Amino acid sequence: MNEGVEIIPRFTLEDGTTLEQVPVAYRTWGRLAPDGANAVVVCHALTGNADVAAWWGALLGRGRALDTDRDFIVCANVLASPYGTASPITTNPATGRPYGADFPIPTIRDTVALHRLLLERLGVRRVRFAIGGSMGGMQALEWAFFGDFVGGVVPIGVGGRHSAWCIGWSETQRQAIFADPSWQGGRYPPGEGPEVGLSIARMIAMISYRSFASYERRFGRERNEFRGRTRFAVESYLEHQGEKLVRRFDANCYVRLTQSMDTHDVSRGRGDYFDVLSGVKQPALVVGVDTDILYPLDEQRELARYMPRARLAVLESEHGHDAFLIEQDAMNAIVQEWRREVIDREA
Amino acid sequence: MNEGVEIIPRFTLEDGTTLEQVPVAYRTWGRLAPDGANAVVVCHALTGNADVAAWWGALLGRGRALDTDRDFIVCANVLASPYGTASPITTNPATGRPYGADFPIPTIRDTVALHRLLLERLGVRRVRFAIGGSMGGMQALEWAFFGDFVGGVVPIGVGGRHSAWCIGWSETQRQAIFADPSWQGGRYPPGEGPEVGLSIARMIAMISYRSFASYERRFGRERNEFRGRTRFAVESYLEHQGEKLVRRFDANCYVRLTQSMDTHDVSRGRGDYFDVLSGVKQPALVVGVDTDILYPLDEQRELARYMPRARLAVLESEHGHDAFLIEQDAMNAIVQEWRREVIDREA
Repeated sequence: MNEGVEIIPRFTLEDGTTLEQVPVAYRTWGRLAPDGANAVVVCHALTGNADVAAWWGALLGRGRALDTDRDFIVCANVLASPYGTASPITTNPATGRPYGADFPIPTIRDTVALHRLLLERLGVRRVRFAIGGSMGGMQALEWAFFGDFVGGVVPIGVGGRHSAWCIGWSETQRQAIFADPSWQGGRYPPGEGPEVGLSIARMIAMISYRSFASYERRFGRERNEFRGRTRFAVESYLEHQGEKLVRRFDANCYVRLTQSMDTHDVSRGRGDYFDVLSGVKQPALVVGVDTDILYPLDEQRELARYMPRARLAVLESEHGHDAFLIEQDAMNAIVQEWRREVIDREA
Repeated sequence: MNEGVEIIPRFTLEDGTTLEQVPVAYRTWGRLAPDGANAVVVCHALTGNADVAAWWGALLGRGRALDTDRDFIVCANVLASPYGTASPITTNPATGRPYGADFPIPTIRDTVALHRLLLERLGVRRVRFAIGGSMGGMQALEWAFFGDFVGGVVPIGVGGRHSAWCIGWSETQRQAIFADPSWQGGRYPPGEGPEVGLSIARMIAMISYRSFASYERRFGRERNEFRGRTRFAVESYLEHQGEKLVRRFDANCYVRLTQSMDTHDVSRGRGDYFDVLSGVKQPALVVGVDTDILYPLDEQRELARYMPRARLAVLESEHGHDAFLIEQDAMNAIVQEWRREVIDREA
């Protein structure tokens, strides 16, 4: 594994904002082939980062779906994430202080365009496939719009445009953050952010990522002791998850990333939504989870129906949306089979 | 229609608390038969009230499921609700001030026991059936445990015990209220409650009550103007819903009612859960909505499988949990058929 940070001198976002001296944090596994044509791009989710080994370890290694023997695997941190790429917590060169609330709302397309610049600097000439789940799946879809530069895409647990339902979930989480008096319109001092609001946002999200059945099996009506009070175990769990996120995330980043996801629409500026999907030339593996309430299977069926070279794979799991991170062996098998039958054959 | 408030001199809750001079607000439709045996009990949901005509009008009237010609229909406001029955906003006779945060957590069973006292005062000798959706469905199930006094039950969009999933949804809503500085541990002055927190709780709830498909059809990625800003229409809708609830509800009531729902477990103190369901002697009509993510159909299938005289009816609707309030004609037909074939035949 290698890790690094590239500085892109200037980068203009879809909304017209230009960022200067833009850091892009990334990790790579395997070696770039002499022709630069063996890259695989892995795209991380909302609170994820470039360390694929940490969150998708079972897919990464010799002979795995992300084959460290054959592929040059690249995962870059997205715009507005607090893990190294330009975000509300990185320094604005114009002021010498963190961007904070002044950081723009990057689109999914902005992040992918920035990551493409990174790939060029790393010497990549062609991407075998781009893969990711949830917000990572949005990026995977956007990679398809670079034409021959990208050989295939694997969007997982996502649709082609963010639904009203998902925007609603996002918005309640943002409102929970905005309601915290420490929010101060995003102009809180570093380290004094809206911890309670961010924690509640995470609690809401943690419901959306799982399912009725997974909660019932894991918690049922069990009670336990938490902070000196007897609580339902699920209450203790959610509160603990909220607090865990607060220790590793920034509220402005969380707000901007959810807004970024809400921009997701592969058809923006490209024409009719279904025509745009029909115009995707590359092979695609569309993966959905049968118990996903956030990005239900109907969305993946829609992608697979309209993208002409798509194959649909249904991951059966009681874990809901998060299954793509939990059922790693199944995910590895699904992706391995597709790349063997489709991607490796085309190479 | 008649409406009234009965004062029950003393009422002891499951937790041992005794309330004195307990108001029970109610409405009735139709006339009590001379033998007092034609009552139908309608149970309202979380933010509902005793005015069945306002929220279930299509089920109420001559020849309808709730037949004003033949039935004596009673709907009483539940404990902890702000619509007239004893609650955080009613006066504690011991102090002369509203109970506020001192109001106990009533169980669903407490409310049903209190309502039974009301029925006795009204001269009711027998209930034809008890019916309700969501929190009302919890009450309908508890009515079954009065034996021959109740002839049948119609629980809608509910299970026999509150799931970890639903407790999780409840808890995030409560935490949103607790996080509001105006909450002050529930000891806010009347009219100065945690409006922002309650509004966010409602936004969260409004997601859980609907479905992916209903939001998509209604809002999609439409934008509109709301409070001088261009927003996604679904964002404006949720914020508006939050604000609407704040104008008609009290935060302590909301917290206590969600806690009351979390106590729901028909087996508490009665033995093994499945044995308890198997011991229900009355005919039951269990209604589920195929798109309900909060109380999924599996819960109603479970009820119908274990309750020996239960019939399962599936309401097909894209509206999710709220379908029982939206698809009133379909609900009316489902209940009418069951009462004609089962309840009216037994009479």
